[in-house]
Amino acid sequence: MATGSVYSLPVTINYEDTDAAGVVYYANYLAYMERARNACLRAAGLPLTVVRDEHNAVFVVTEVRLRYRKPAMLDDVISVTLEVDELRGASVTFIHHVLRGEELLVDGQIRLGILSGDTCVPCRIPDVVRQVLDRHRIQ
Amino acid sequence: MATGSVYSLPVTINYEDTDAAGVVYYANYLAYMERARNACLRAAGLPLTVVRDEHNAVFVVTEVRLRYRKPAMLDDVISVTLEVDELRGASVTFIHHVLRGEELLVDGQIRLGILSGDTCVPCRIPDVVRQVLDRHRIQ
Amino acid sequence: MATGSVYSLPVTINYEDTDAAGVVYYANYLAYMERARNACLRAAGLPLTVVRDEHNAVFVVTEVRLRYRKPAMLDDVISVTLEVDELRGASVTFIHHVLRGEELLVDGQIRLGILSGDTCVPCRIPDVVRQVLDRHRIQ
Amino acid sequence: MATGSVYSLPVTINYEDTDAAGVVYYANYLAYMERARNACLRAAGLPLTVVRDEHNAVFVVTEVRLRYRKPAMLDDVISVTLEVDELRGASVTFIHHVLRGEELLVDGQIRLGILSGDTCVPCRIPDVVRQVLDRHRIQ
Repeated sequence: MATGSVYSLPVTINYEDTDAAGVVYYANYLAYMERARNACLRAAGLPLTVVRDEHNAVFVVTEVRLRYRKPAMLDDVISVTLEVDELRGASVTFIHHVLRGEELLVDGQIRLGILSGDTCVPCRIPDVVRQVLDRHRIQ
Repeated sequence: MATGSVYSLPVTINYEDTDAAGVVYYANYLAYMERARNACLRAAGLPLTVVRDEHNAVFVVTEVRLRYRKPAMLDDVISVTLEVDELRGASVTFIHHVLRGEELLVDGQIRLGILSGDTCVPCRIPDVVRQVLDRHRIQ
Repeated sequence: MATGSVYSLPVTINYEDTDAAGVVYYANYLAYMERARNACLRAAGLPLTVVRDEHNAVFVVTEVRLRYRKPAMLDDVISVTLEVDELRGASVTFIHHVLRGEELLVDGQIRLGILSGDTCVPCRIPDVVRQVLDRHRIQ
Repeated sequence: MATGSVYSLPVTINYEDTDAAGVVYYANYLAYMERARNACLRAAGLPLTVVRDEHNAVFVVTEVRLRYRKPAMLDDVISVTLEVDELRGASVTFIHHVLRGEELLVDGQIRLGILSGDTCVPCRIPDVVRQVLDRHRIQ
């Protein structure tokens, strides 16, 4: 796996992220993974509002699979990584890893479809978006 | 204060509501208070989508004041109450209390303005909404 | 599948649940599924704090799989159901369905392990908890 | 007001932050203000877990006042600032501003008390924490 293909976003854990078990609430990792996807596109000059307004395309999550191995905790600074596994005409599957240093906390696969922004019908991923996703494909 | 004017919604505290300090996260009380306001209108036949789609009006919060006295905790069933304090042409101030039994946990005042749904300009509270709010005025 | 085995919790969608795409944010379904699990145990006299304090056991989610079919929206009243699929010594897999009337919106499988509350080591599901879970097994 | 006293944290708005009205959900600004407070202490070498574990002190919010002027929206990068207004023996009042460029979106005052971590009784703000807060006092 070429390291160059991995996008990584640091996330600092605050009280808002944790629950009374003293760990990050299990649903929140999905939000961190969304942050990583958006930050990756934004870094390539394609924030979601540009994808929507200039390329008439919106992402919708269709499937999620997460495995929780170890919990993140208050004040941890975790890394949320992203790679692209399957890149099809109208859908893409991301692989995410949540790490604390070298330690794997959570990993997941998230599949998204692309809809036309005005008709809400599945459509082809715009080429400019596809080029960015392609850079992060698992080698 | 006539008891009849108070609307009350029960809220059960789950892990999602709490933080690593073992108590409900401080921002979440604002969500419970929104739930109480919406439930009150819904119980009167005026869910927010009806207010928006049939009466062309949307609420926007303009000011919030909360005092935190005691924390709610996992598995608590709390009551979130609502009364209307000031009811003007284009704004309304709610008084909320969060109680565990007789015990006051949090209280707050929340001021909302009303905007026209299509122009986003302040507008008069629709009469059907005003009648519901009027029933909950502090005596 | 015996209907008697299905536990169902109604959830009303408020602004806090939705996002700028006009639909429920994808991570929130995990919170609704947690609410359904806790409500089911609570209805059987076993809220999570009782399981923890009297039976020295805490649940931890180890794996999640969700499929998103249609979105829930503001003011929807959805049903979040629960059934138990696999019930082992120290783990349990729940099947959840999120429905709007007869319409399936989201379905998922969530696997939880049980840890001893004081040592955080995997332990047997307490018998009183097992009896409740057993009532909701898929026939 | 000396500019040097203002701490500022950038926050990028993702779908998780917004609601079906197309704007940031009103409760979330309280989370951003918590992030700014924690980041400020962390930058001074005092993350909350250090304050708790080495100085036996935890913050609790006792009062909140927010004024909402304009909404933040998807893909905005906002600044959440922090200054210290009143710094007493066992409490501190922060002033927060949420800005998009020069434009003021939300401002608030948040009062926190300090409790001893083991006894949960109000206690003096530890000196190392007080020194950090003092640097951010409004001149």
